[in-house]
Order: sequence, then structure tokens, then C-alpha cells
Amino acid sequence: MDDRKAGGEDVFALLRSVVDVLESSHTLTPSGAVVQYHDPLDLETLLDFKLGDETSADQLMDLISKTVKLSVRTSHPLFFNQLYGGTDPFGLAGAVVSEALNTSAYTHEVAPVFSLSEREVLKASLKLVGFDDGDGIFSPGGSISNMYGIVLSRFRRFPDSKKDGVYGLPTLVIYTSQDSHYSVTKGANWLGLGTSNVVKIESDARGKMIPSKLEEAIRNSISEGKIPLIVNCTSGTTVLGAFDPLEEIAKICEAHGIWMHVDGCWGGSLLLSKIHKKKLAGVEKADSVSWNPHKMLGAPLQCSLFLVKHKGLLKSCNMAGATYLFQPDKMYDPSYDSGDLSVQCGRKVDSFKLWTLWKYRGNCALGELVDHAVEMANYFLDTIRNRPGFKLVLDEFETTNVCFWFIPPRLRDCVETEDWWRQIHKVGPALKKKLVESGDMMIGYQPLEHRNLKNFFRMVVTCHPPRTKSDMDSAVELIEKYGNQL
Amino acid sequence: MDDRKAGGEDVFALLRSVVDVLESSHTLTPSGAVVQYHDPLDLETLLDFKLGDETSADQLMDLISKTVKLSVRTSHPLFFNQLYGGTDPFGLAGAVVSEALNTSAYTHEVAPVFSLSEREVLKASLKLVGFDDGDGIFSPGGSISNMYGIVLSRFRRFPDSKKDGVYGLPTLVIYTSQDSHYSVTKGANWLGLGTSNVVKIESDARGKMIPSKLEEAIRNSISEGKIPLIVNCTSGTTVLGAFDPLEEIAKICEAHGIWMHVDGCWGGSLLLSKIHKKKLAGVEKADSVSWNPHKMLGAPLQCSLFLVKHKGLLKSCNMAGATYLFQPDKMYDPSYDSGDLSVQCGRKVDSFKLWTLWKYRGNCALGELVDHAVEMANYFLDTIRNRPGFKLVLDEFETTNVCFWFIPPRLRDCVETEDWWRQIHKVGPALKKKLVESGDMMIGYQPLEHRNLKNFFRMVVTCHPPRTKSDMDSAVELIEKYGNQL
Repeated sequence: MDDRKAGGEDVFALLRSVVDVLESSHTLTPSGAVVQYHDPLDLETLLDFKLGDETSADQLMDLISKTVKLSVRTSHPLFFNQLYGGTDPFGLAGAVVSEALNTSAYTHEVAPVFSLSEREVLKASLKLVGFDDGDGIFSPGGSISNMYGIVLSRFRRFPDSKKDGVYGLPTLVIYTSQDSHYSVTKGANWLGLGTSNVVKIESDARGKMIPSKLEEAIRNSISEGKIPLIVNCTSGTTVLGAFDPLEEIAKICEAHGIWMHVDGCWGGSLLLSKIHKKKLAGVEKADSVSWNPHKMLGAPLQCSLFLVKHKGLLKSCNMAGATYLFQPDKMYDPSYDSGDLSVQCGRKVDSFKLWTLWKYRGNCALGELVDHAVEMANYFLDTIRNRPGFKLVLDEFETTNVCFWFIPPRLRDCVETEDWWRQIHKVGPALKKKLVESGDMMIGYQPLEHRNLKNFFRMVVTCHPPRTKSDMDSAVELIEKYGNQL
Repeated sequence: MDDRKAGGEDVFALLRSVVDVLESSHTLTPSGAVVQYHDPLDLETLLDFKLGDETSADQLMDLISKTVKLSVRTSHPLFFNQLYGGTDPFGLAGAVVSEALNTSAYTHEVAPVFSLSEREVLKASLKLVGFDDGDGIFSPGGSISNMYGIVLSRFRRFPDSKKDGVYGLPTLVIYTSQDSHYSVTKGANWLGLGTSNVVKIESDARGKMIPSKLEEAIRNSISEGKIPLIVNCTSGTTVLGAFDPLEEIAKICEAHGIWMHVDGCWGGSLLLSKIHKKKLAGVEKADSVSWNPHKMLGAPLQCSLFLVKHKGLLKSCNMAGATYLFQPDKMYDPSYDSGDLSVQCGRKVDSFKLWTLWKYRGNCALGELVDHAVEMANYFLDTIRNRPGFKLVLDEFETTNVCFWFIPPRLRDCVETEDWWRQIHKVGPALKKKLVESGDMMIGYQPLEHRNLKNFFRMVVTCHPPRTKSDMDSAVELIEKYGNQL
């Protein structure tokens, strides 16, 4: 074998070069552009993506350098495009450690420290949610965490479905609000339950599921001979940031014996805040919860937890007892092996980066970071509330989602006709294009069809980097600068 | 906010400290122990895992340093415990870049370079498999990749099942060999198809599915009024490394209109080898393929691909059309957004690390690394074939799995009674314990109940670090050293 291409490389020199490239391109520092935009077709010509032939280490480092330069800088303070942003530096340090140690989380045997840090993170997270003695597992994202909830609810009610499938069962119904995440629908397809058996419950003007509408839908299902299986509540909806009324929903679920799942992927981090945790009041009454610390909290992607109140259920539902991994005659207590709680086999170590950032900051500072993010969203809202050109979708905000339209000067003080709205609808993509092309800022927009709302912007503030008032002012000014040209 | 705990940390200094810790602890270099073993209960006392209070940056670095020291060194040449091992240094470099740039693979908008490197990797992988114009997606591991195959097979045959679930359908049957991976069973549970509808097809002495038995099972299903849905073939079984006869199975699938999926998670990397790719002859006739470059090829965990021949199917099956992510009025061609091909929403960037290592080495060197791994397995087999104390499970090996028992001196030249086998069964865990406690080496053992085989060892060779003959000699000598004491 040619030595150059097969081992013997100085991996540490390589890693240091990568850190140098990241530093010199100001990737993780709050200056410069958020993105150097190129159309995909142009971008394809700027980097030699083609695979097949070998290249030199220098050429590769050059490609890496270009990659860094041409990528979106999610850690920039003016990146508001998604429900994630920059990483917590201590989370990133933890992520690099687990990448380098390259192992799978399934057994204590190959992940001795990581299996223990995972247990501790799960323990602390169960406590946060208010589950006294539950179980948990890291999953590769919120969609799969939500699927865990559906699968467990089915297994608990119909344990034979594990063996027999759902063929013999009455139709099982999943309830979720109109404003909830689309993963519930995607999950219903995968899990053989059918997307048409996901009943979308009307939410109020604020985006919260209306309990009386849920009650009504449940009664309808029962009268149709269907089985109400699970209510998927949302704590922090994707667009409006809304929190479903968990206490009221819990009563309904209890009365009907329905599994209550809380999708807290986005808003779950508010549990760390002494001030804002009340938004999730009643979460401890749920059967299961999803939480993505890779969103607001800035754990590097992917970091998603599924937590369940009923100890043992996760394992009895998912276990397959593969004897090549989970030997009963191991040299240690095999209950330290988490693999059979998961639907996966090999499983990336996602716990350690959360453990490092949590260990460093502690509960208090994490809560303060969350409080600060909410405060900055509030400052943004106050700034635009009565400002010419800004029109709020809602007067108040939840989580950190501030939703608004920008009205260019030519469209201000007009009657809001259908045609006017048609023009406002085009402002979203046009203004976004200007912000992205200039590289100054990234913020998301979307319509909300079920509310007949035309394209509007969604400001979302995450914990990293901690935003300043000046960052939020810049955001407002940039929107005005480009929006006034439209 | 307290500045120390909330932003402003020097992330690059932190990353350099992490690299220093990794280097000084010889984590990625071929010397020292594979593991410093401690019982979980002891290990819990060696590191302060508890979360709640804050800690200092120095204390955290100390904890990270202990973590590195007390973790299993999967990149050690004598780590043979799993179907993965050390990482390709260029893959690790790529992984660190994508960790630092922290984004999701779902849209080109937030992952401009990564979405293009993903396209290129998928293109090159589809070519490797022999699919002219298919689709692919990165998934968080082989289990989920195999589930993609099952879901697509169901959707293609019964498109309405997406909407209606599987309630109205006849029982759908999944065929897989006795020696295949347990993910197929776990998947059948999740997907609502039922574990009892996974029919395990007898495999031959070598571990390969017997086509006539498959044919028989299909006929049985049909006569019972069930629908044969999918055959899950394995290219590289977990324990024996066996390759199912794809050409013959393809004919059967074609004759009955059954979806053919190839689980090439382990053995799929042999497609890169000019010498060994013949083991997968016929793979191009499959409808879909799973391949985990995080196994043999040493891409950092997680790196799994699902590839499908039928263009468009992945999207029509999985799409939910969330308008807050996949706006139709984007500034670029939205076909560059891969999110709606996935069952996930947020999706870790798993493609870039595979792209960097592939780009650096090229097809040829990757093939040579695979050839070398196979050669080292062959050398190991030759070394133990007629050596006192070693008893082969099979005379030959496939992929790089060499399976054997070690017979301590006191049990040699005995009649192989039931009691003798009972004692041999105990050698596996006892010898493993000695190897692990000494920290000298890690190798897996397992029984194979369906073949009535008592605990035996499974040697598996991966590409990283490239093993030498001297490594393989050391492995033999260590097994003898500790085994002879039993």
C-alpha cells in the first residue's frame, strides 16, 4: 500500500490545521458576513466536488478552507434563520472529543465514560421534566423522538402489536394541533398508522391547541369506532412558538386513557429558566416528552432526547436481545447497556456534548442564557411594535418567536385588500433575497396556510451566541434598509 | 449575565486544548492500552458526573482529559470489538468541520456546500452500487436505513398506505436470513408490520440465505393469503460476514414482484475493491441498498446511506411539504433541498466527512485499504488455522470476519461432549475479561443460538488503523497468553 494514502497521517497536525482554518475564516466569531451567497449552479463551479481521483492533503485543506468560507455561519449573531444557531463552545469541545473517540453508545463495554455521562444527562433531564423514575434515550432528532412517543403509546395499549403489527386493531388516532410540527404526520406514515389518522386540532389565535376542540375530536373518533391513541402536545410550536395548555390537555388524556406526549423540542429548554418554565406547567403529567438541546441551548447538532415516565417500557417495546452485543455473561452489570432501549443499533454518542456544556455552566447559567434569549426577543418585539413598516402577526410572543410582516413604504397606509396581501406575500422572499445576497443577515419567512396568513418573517433567538441589544437593533435596521427598497 | 458562563469564551483555544488532550493521551496513536478497564460502579467514582452546579473551565478540561483516558481507544490496532474502529484522519477532519459549522442538511439555504457534497457522495455511491439514476439519503444508522427500504417497498406497492395506514391491507411479509441483523425485526415493530411477519430464511453452513428456502417461504405466505413484500438480503452478516447470493435472490424477487433490499451496511465497502466486489455481484438488481461507511471504511460515526433505484420514490413517500422550510418561492431551485426525502426534519451533516476522506484518497486507495483489511483477516486465518488451541467455526471467511474458538490446554484433544462445549462456552467471557482487564486487546464473542454454536470469538478487521501482520500476530499471541491460563 501507498503509505501516503493509507494510514500514518499525522491526525493531530490535521486537526490543528482545521482549527486554524476555522479561526482564520472567522467562522465562530461575530464579525463579517453571515453567508457569501452563490446560486447552487455557481457554487458547483467554485469547489471541485467530484469524487473518484485522489487529491493531495494540501488540496484537501484548500477545499476545506473554501468550504468554511462558503458555508452559512450559523454562529453569527445575525443568523436567525432556524431554531438552532451557534453552538455552545463547551458543547463543541465535547462534540470534538466524542468524534475523535469514535464509538457507539449501545454498550458500556465500548463507551464506558459516555454511557455514564448519558445516564447522568438523562437523570438530570428527567428531573427537569418532573418524571420521578422514568427512562430516556438519545435519538437522532426531534422527528424520531416524537415517533418514539407514538410507538410507545401503541405498545403500551396493545402490547401484541409488536408481534402482530397493527392489522387486527381498530384505527388508532393521533391528535396534534394545526400548528404542530410535521414530524407527527411523517411518523404516522412510517409507523403504518396513516397520515389521515392524524387529526389536526384547531388552535386558538395564539397557536395553542383548543382543549374543547380536542375533546370534540376524541368523541368523534370514539363514535366512529376508532381508538384515541395519543395526543401530541407542543411546547413551542415551530412558527409561532406557542405552548399548548398542558394542564387542561392532561385532564382530557387522563379521562380518556390517552397517552400524552409533549413535543418540547423547541420550547423544552425553557424548563431551565426559573422565570419561563411556567409555560410548560403540567409537563410532568405527560407520559413522554421530546426535547432538542441542539435547538435553543446550542448543543451541536444532533442532540435530541426522548423521555418517558414509565420505567421499563422503552426496553420492553424496543428490545431484540441480540446476543452478539448484549451478552448475558458480560463482566459487568448489563443494565449499563442502553442499546436495547433504542430502535437503532449503532448510535452516535450525542450525550457527551450536552454533558460538557451542562457541567460547565450548571443549571443556573443555562437558565440565565435562556432568560437572556427571551429577553432579546422581547427587546426586538418592543423595538418593532410601533415602528413604521413593521406589522405584527401577534401582539405578544412565546418561546422566542416574534412574527411580523415588513411593509415597504409604497404599501404603507393602504387598505388591506386581497391584492395588497398578494404583494406583501412577495415581500418575504424578495427581502430575504436581499439580506442573503448582501450576506448581512439570515431570517426565515413562511406563510401559514391554515390561518390564511401570507408570507411573514419569524425572528427566533437562541442562546448562542448570546445576542446583544445592538445585534437586535442591527436586525431591525437591516430589515428596514433592504425592505425600504422594495 | 455572568460573562464567564455566557458567551465570549475563546472557542479556538478550547478546541486546541481538546486536540492537545487527545494527543497527549495517545488516543489516536497505536501504542498503550486499548482500555483502562473499571467496573461501572468504580468508574462512577472516578469522574464527577453529577450535573447541577457549575464548574470551572479548568475543571472541565480535567474531566475531559479523564474521559479520554478512561474511554475505549477504538483507534487502537488491537481493537477488534465491533464492526467499526478508528476513523480515517481525513474523515475526522471533515467531521470536525461540520461539527463547528453546526447546521442541518435539510436545505441548501443553510447548508450550501454540504448539500452539494452530499449530492456528489450520493452520486458516487449510486454509481458504486450500479444504480444509474436513483436517489439516496443519509440516515442516522443502518437500522434506520433498512427501515427506509421496508417503508419504500410498502409505499410503492400500496401508495394509499401512506394515508390510510396498513389496516386494510393483507398481512405483509418481510423475508430475511437467520443470520441477518436484528434491525429488520426492530423495524417491523416500529413500522406496524409486526415482528412475527418477519420470516427468517434458513441460511447455509456459511451463513448465506438459501434461495430454495426463500422460494418455499414465499409460496407459503401466498398460500396463507399474505403478501410477500420485501426480501432483505445481507451483504456481510454481522457475525459470520456472509454474503447472500444476490443474483439468485434477484431472480426470485423479480418473478414474484417483491422488493429486493440489500443490507450492505458492513460488507458494502467491498464494492470499492476491484478484487472483492464480486461478493456483491447482482447488487445492481436490487431496489435499494444500505451502506455504512462508518463501519469498515472508518468514516466517523454516524455515516449511513440509503440508496434506491427508483428516482422520485423517496420524496413521494416521505414528503410533507412543510412551507416554513421548503418555500416554493425560494431564491434558488428548491430541488437542491433534500429535506423532504427524509423521515427526519433536522438532519446532521453526515456527508461531508465521507466526502473529505473519499476526495483525499480517491477510489483506488479506498479499494486498497479494503483489500488490505481483507488481507490481514486472511493472514490471521492462516496463522490460526492449524495452530494448537484454535478451532475454526468456518474454514474460510467472508468480509473480514474470522470466527473461532480458543481451547485452553486442559480442554484440548478431548471428546467434544455436551459438557466440553459447556466449558468452551465459558471460555469466551473469561478470556475476554482477561484481555479487557489487562487492556491489551478487545475482541467480540457471541453464541449463535440458531446454529447451536456456543460462545466463539469474531475477529473483524476494519480499514483504520491499517493493521500490520505484526498487529495480527500480537492478537494471536495475546489470545494464547491469556487463554492458556484458563
